[in-house]
Amino acid sequence: MLQPYRTLLGILLLGATSAACSDELTTASVMAALEQSDWRQPDPANLLYMRLPQGVVIMELAPSFAPENVSNIKTLVREKYFDGLAIIRSQDNYVAQWGDPAEEENEARPFGSASATVVPEFSRAADGLDITTIDSRDAYADIVGFADGFPVGSDGEGTWLTHCYGMVGVARGNELDSGNGSSLYVITGHAPRHLDRNITLAGRVLSGIEHLTTLPRGTGPLGFYETADEHTPIISIRMGDDVPEDDTANFEIMRTDTEAFADYVKSRTFRHEEWFVDPTGHIEICNINPPVRTID
Amino acid sequence: MLQPYRTLLGILLLGATSAACSDELTTASVMAALEQSDWRQPDPANLLYMRLPQGVVIMELAPSFAPENVSNIKTLVREKYFDGLAIIRSQDNYVAQWGDPAEEENEARPFGSASATVVPEFSRAADGLDITTIDSRDAYADIVGFADGFPVGSDGEGTWLTHCYGMVGVARGNELDSGNGSSLYVITGHAPRHLDRNITLAGRVLSGIEHLTTLPRGTGPLGFYETADEHTPIISIRMGDDVPEDDTANFEIMRTDTEAFADYVKSRTFRHEEWFVDPTGHIEICNINPPVRTID
Repeated sequence: MLQPYRTLLGILLLGATSAACSDELTTASVMAALEQSDWRQPDPANLLYMRLPQGVVIMELAPSFAPENVSNIKTLVREKYFDGLAIIRSQDNYVAQWGDPAEEENEARPFGSASATVVPEFSRAADGLDITTIDSRDAYADIVGFADGFPVGSDGEGTWLTHCYGMVGVARGNELDSGNGSSLYVITGHAPRHLDRNITLAGRVLSGIEHLTTLPRGTGPLGFYETADEHTPIISIRMGDDVPEDDTANFEIMRTDTEAFADYVKSRTFRHEEWFVDPTGHIEICNINPPVRTID
Repeated sequence: MLQPYRTLLGILLLGATSAACSDELTTASVMAALEQSDWRQPDPANLLYMRLPQGVVIMELAPSFAPENVSNIKTLVREKYFDGLAIIRSQDNYVAQWGDPAEEENEARPFGSASATVVPEFSRAADGLDITTIDSRDAYADIVGFADGFPVGSDGEGTWLTHCYGMVGVARGNELDSGNGSSLYVITGHAPRHLDRNITLAGRVLSGIEHLTTLPRGTGPLGFYETADEHTPIISIRMGDDVPEDDTANFEIMRTDTEAFADYVKSRTFRHEEWFVDPTGHIEICNINPPVRTID
């Protein structure tokens, strides 16, 4: 006889980190064994703080993959380009996107000292970048893993960021250099990996993604909002080193180049929690999200 | 010189179906060439209509994969088990889940003539089920494709539904038969494929998933809401053949066993739209979502 329903609810262990049934690695056991050296603190100069009425979204930029685009984004941010602009698109199972909603061309906000065009950085040389590879049969890339804390694909010659949930990209038109960082998107659904190597990725959301993923979906083509009333205003975007100390979130992110991270991946690949019947034995790059923690 | 910004916004073709630059297949060209015989109408007796204050979520059940669980769900629905219950969980990049929020065991709603336990249907025999296979290097299954319109994995002996975005599952506790359909979940993030063969999937959302994906995230462990105030009430769940004709949505779903579907998959695998620099040449099962259209 099944236990009363409340008890059942209490043990709905979809994704839970219950006690291991053996001494094999579980995510809980790996996390409990982490040492301070297994964590890194991101450089505040690479953090974007986007303040929305709902709360703050914090992103880490990836200058080792998109130096020119990241540089242009920083210029836009430091000149307060985004303040008062809006989230203009939310397409279910795809992206949220922000930028200048100006309907009339002559009302569009000028880019200031930022460039209107930036070289595409869809991929970079594999040389000079260490990848912690993941043992996975990936549909889109021969090699997958993590580099500088970000998920990557590689063919041995080039290495590129992968379009996993929460990644931040530089919207572009048909011209390859038409993306300049003035309109950015965040992946809010199943990883659209066909975008890999077709558009510049520039970072990853560390905190507050729920402020983007719960936005009402736009009803226009591609999930664009059809009226200005539907836009979510951007109060401000600031670089982390320009945020007043009282408003700063102190993050640590699990390093991806450690033995501990290898154990973490192993614990996500082989599921030894009691709930699992089939321990799986497989993993996909976008199902590994390096943990983020807030510290005092 | 970049065109004025408004023009750039107009051509942000992330996922757009722009005109093809050659006579090679594009999603737009495939869709335009579909014939009536390329579409199927789902059996109303396999449709769930979940009415929320925000709108209606319509799901198609998969009796060929989970006959016992689907049967129990139908019993619960026909006896109006869900009316007045609630969505009790929304975990970002994972699931939304509903069921009985009763805090006190003795207040839990009885299951009526439905069973309190149901056999797990995590996988079924491969025999007797035709799979339209997809040419993909899948991280989790040796064979992937579509069967009866649903995404599946297979090892040649067993075939199972895959945890893609929008799939509907039967929550369970640690006991394998503890899922009975009284608590269901929908995948609202990147496909958690490690759940495949660990829990019973029973269907797929056809329409209205945005009413689930935009719900505020729960702040308790596993994304459960911490207070009853946060619950979204379920006004009713009805089987499609019990919905008054005026409230019925007439859907057609692209068949997955046709030449046209093979072309559709090809157009998602090789991207010939003008926007793409790299046509990709790869596809992953959860990046193929058989289109749904409403008919008059």
